[in-house]
Amino acid sequence: MLASTLRQRRHNLKQKIDFPAILWSGGARSRNFPNTYPFRASSHFLYFAGLPLENAAIRLDDGKLELYWDEPPEESTLWHGEQSDRDEIAAQIGADAAYPLPELSDRPRDAATIAVQDATTYQQQINTLNRSLSSPHESEGRDLTLIKAIICLRLTHDRHALSELQKAANVSVEAHQAGMRKAKIAKTEAEVRGAMESAIIANNMTCSYNSIVTVRGEVLHNERYDNPVEAGDLILADVGAETPLGWAADITRTFPATGKFSPTQRDIYDVVLAAQKRCIDRVKPGVEYRDIHLLAALTIAEGLVDLGILRGTPSELVDRDAHALFFPHGIGHLLGLDVHDMEDLGDLAGYEAGRQRSDRFGLGYLRLDRTLRSQMLVTIEPGFYQVPALLQRAQKQDKYKKIVNWERLAKFADTRGIRIEDDVLVTESGCEILTEKLPKVAEHIEELVMGNG
Amino acid sequence: MLASTLRQRRHNLKQKIDFPAILWSGGARSRNFPNTYPFRASSHFLYFAGLPLENAAIRLDDGKLELYWDEPPEESTLWHGEQSDRDEIAAQIGADAAYPLPELSDRPRDAATIAVQDATTYQQQINTLNRSLSSPHESEGRDLTLIKAIICLRLTHDRHALSELQKAANVSVEAHQAGMRKAKIAKTEAEVRGAMESAIIANNMTCSYNSIVTVRGEVLHNERYDNPVEAGDLILADVGAETPLGWAADITRTFPATGKFSPTQRDIYDVVLAAQKRCIDRVKPGVEYRDIHLLAALTIAEGLVDLGILRGTPSELVDRDAHALFFPHGIGHLLGLDVHDMEDLGDLAGYEAGRQRSDRFGLGYLRLDRTLRSQMLVTIEPGFYQVPALLQRAQKQDKYKKIVNWERLAKFADTRGIRIEDDVLVTESGCEILTEKLPKVAEHIEELVMGNG
Repeated sequence: MLASTLRQRRHNLKQKIDFPAILWSGGARSRNFPNTYPFRASSHFLYFAGLPLENAAIRLDDGKLELYWDEPPEESTLWHGEQSDRDEIAAQIGADAAYPLPELSDRPRDAATIAVQDATTYQQQINTLNRSLSSPHESEGRDLTLIKAIICLRLTHDRHALSELQKAANVSVEAHQAGMRKAKIAKTEAEVRGAMESAIIANNMTCSYNSIVTVRGEVLHNERYDNPVEAGDLILADVGAETPLGWAADITRTFPATGKFSPTQRDIYDVVLAAQKRCIDRVKPGVEYRDIHLLAALTIAEGLVDLGILRGTPSELVDRDAHALFFPHGIGHLLGLDVHDMEDLGDLAGYEAGRQRSDRFGLGYLRLDRTLRSQMLVTIEPGFYQVPALLQRAQKQDKYKKIVNWERLAKFADTRGIRIEDDVLVTESGCEILTEKLPKVAEHIEELVMGNG
Repeated sequence: MLASTLRQRRHNLKQKIDFPAILWSGGARSRNFPNTYPFRASSHFLYFAGLPLENAAIRLDDGKLELYWDEPPEESTLWHGEQSDRDEIAAQIGADAAYPLPELSDRPRDAATIAVQDATTYQQQINTLNRSLSSPHESEGRDLTLIKAIICLRLTHDRHALSELQKAANVSVEAHQAGMRKAKIAKTEAEVRGAMESAIIANNMTCSYNSIVTVRGEVLHNERYDNPVEAGDLILADVGAETPLGWAADITRTFPATGKFSPTQRDIYDVVLAAQKRCIDRVKPGVEYRDIHLLAALTIAEGLVDLGILRGTPSELVDRDAHALFFPHGIGHLLGLDVHDMEDLGDLAGYEAGRQRSDRFGLGYLRLDRTLRSQMLVTIEPGFYQVPALLQRAQKQDKYKKIVNWERLAKFADTRGIRIEDDVLVTESGCEILTEKLPKVAEHIEELVMGNG
């Protein structure tokens, strides 16, 4: 199945470009010698080569696939065991031919490529092609044409990809369930994280990004895990798995450490959940993702007006970016081989041709601005955060100081950060939630944490 | 305590070099953009700077410490939360002065340095010093003098280091206990690994190297975890923790998945354990580490003769490298900030001046050939492996084919790989085992796996 999937992918590429392309996988990165980080192949390579081969390249030309890869030296058997040889790998991925890596230098140098992230391989790319090579988002000519063609392919997922993405989603669901079960007895964030990542490791997957597991959910990319977990804390867990072939999931849940939301936490939670549900209900082909973001903004504004935290008409509040005081990021992003899929290409993948990032506070962090199409996979992840730096600044600004009922807001001090995130596949008739099995209704989460779930 | 430890370390350095040195921490490595691997600072930097600061440099001159580091931009508070500013960090590490990173370029360019592993920072080093920069093991002049001075310091551990190393050892012990408890119900290697790494993560530590958790222990650096665990399998687990400040532990245990060694497994296990115990008993100042390796070789040869697997006189078998058919690696290595401490410096740290690697099969993989001194930390890790490639070759070689009783060996087919590894600190009067709390006597391991431990 892998070989036929890859054949179809390069056939699709052939429809879009009439010149050869070479994609490199990259090499393992040194951590502290001789330790390396676990190898992760470049996603563009993985899309067409299927397997995470180290220090490999593929040449795609007219629908044909050539593999360039050096077999490990014989003495490496002692250290790494018997490994597949080049011909076995070539057969597995349906390559039309396979050669040692150095032979790549003998091929015509007219191929397009995409610069990889690691410097050693980047230098190899330059040497092999004998020309300079821009960062992907600054590419020109054939390289840019190749990038646009690959974006077009990777924007929507084929059956093989969807099967991998569903596996990643399932294991991520398991990880979150383990985290919720652990929460009630955990003394630190690290213990909750340990339970979650254990489920991912036990399924022979890796984390698709550095986990966020924190009682300080208002720090959006918090990568520390040393806070104690105390009664009354909300734990925000943003953790996802990646399959061995590189396909990612991305889930966030927020749950009460000791099993019960406080009334204020629950009020805010219900606002975020309402926003998430309305957004997911809106997902279908033809809809603008930007409008889904604005729907989340509106729903949050409405909810905060109802709770007496914001003053005014919800739609006007959104126009003034007041929602962004509490929901300062975008509603989500593309998901695929990368957890922020194809963001190595700058906004070329996330933004439809001719569109660019807004400089509005309430829109500038939107990572995706495209018309949704069937088989696109996106995250839907509204949130509510009390970021001290943001709110302190707003309190001094004419524009915001009267919009927020600061006294009322103070009553919600136990609600630092909430985010609810699922992976949503656009289907022909609407959408399908790959991460649907994980509870997000407050009562169901409470049951799971309390051990009755 | 950190500041005074660091002061002492640079005072010690001052005794050895009379010129300035600059050490860089390195930057986070891209995994798949915008994902990065968890940041790990360069060990030489960590030794003198104490904290894992990203994209930082320190200048050491005449016992003084200058920190060069850019504070994160204000807007990063939204994503990463409040962080310590430069002056707070400087106070914490007892720096004499602290500056933005670009000011490093204004300092005299006469400093020595050690090349870091990541290419971006390496380029910064070259630009700042305005000269070429060799790989550490090919350094010359002041750089080499600096390297030798740092080796001399890092070879033995101060109290702060020992306290960190003990913490790493304790958490690693916990991880191994969790693995043994999991083994009996685990269906795959990955599940055992999940339980082990969970204990490390839960203690807010990282893995000090990529874990080996395998029923194919004969593959020395096996980093796959997808084999099923079946009755009769031995699980070889080589897993260690690293503290947030970068200090490592390194433990291997081999245990029966279902709780009971078979008689053949136990026979071999007892041979390896006897070798390990004799080696540890020998550890004290003034002893040659190479002799400890040879003692392990001899003990294994004796054991295999007793079991009828090898034929001949043990000491002659060792002279002919016959032990290396089953114990092809060295008895261990230095342990400190790196799990193979200072191996970024080639053999400069591991081999005493004037010594070099042997080309003998039974000695060539020895990573450490020094006279032991008080406060050195080494691993002691003998093993027994049936590596098909090695044994098939030996069976055809005149040198070995009659030494091995191949028929007898075939009866031990259920014993693919065994290694027992502890972290042993040389003390003034002998040694101390940092990882002593983890059982290694067969019965005690069986009890732990069976759930009575």
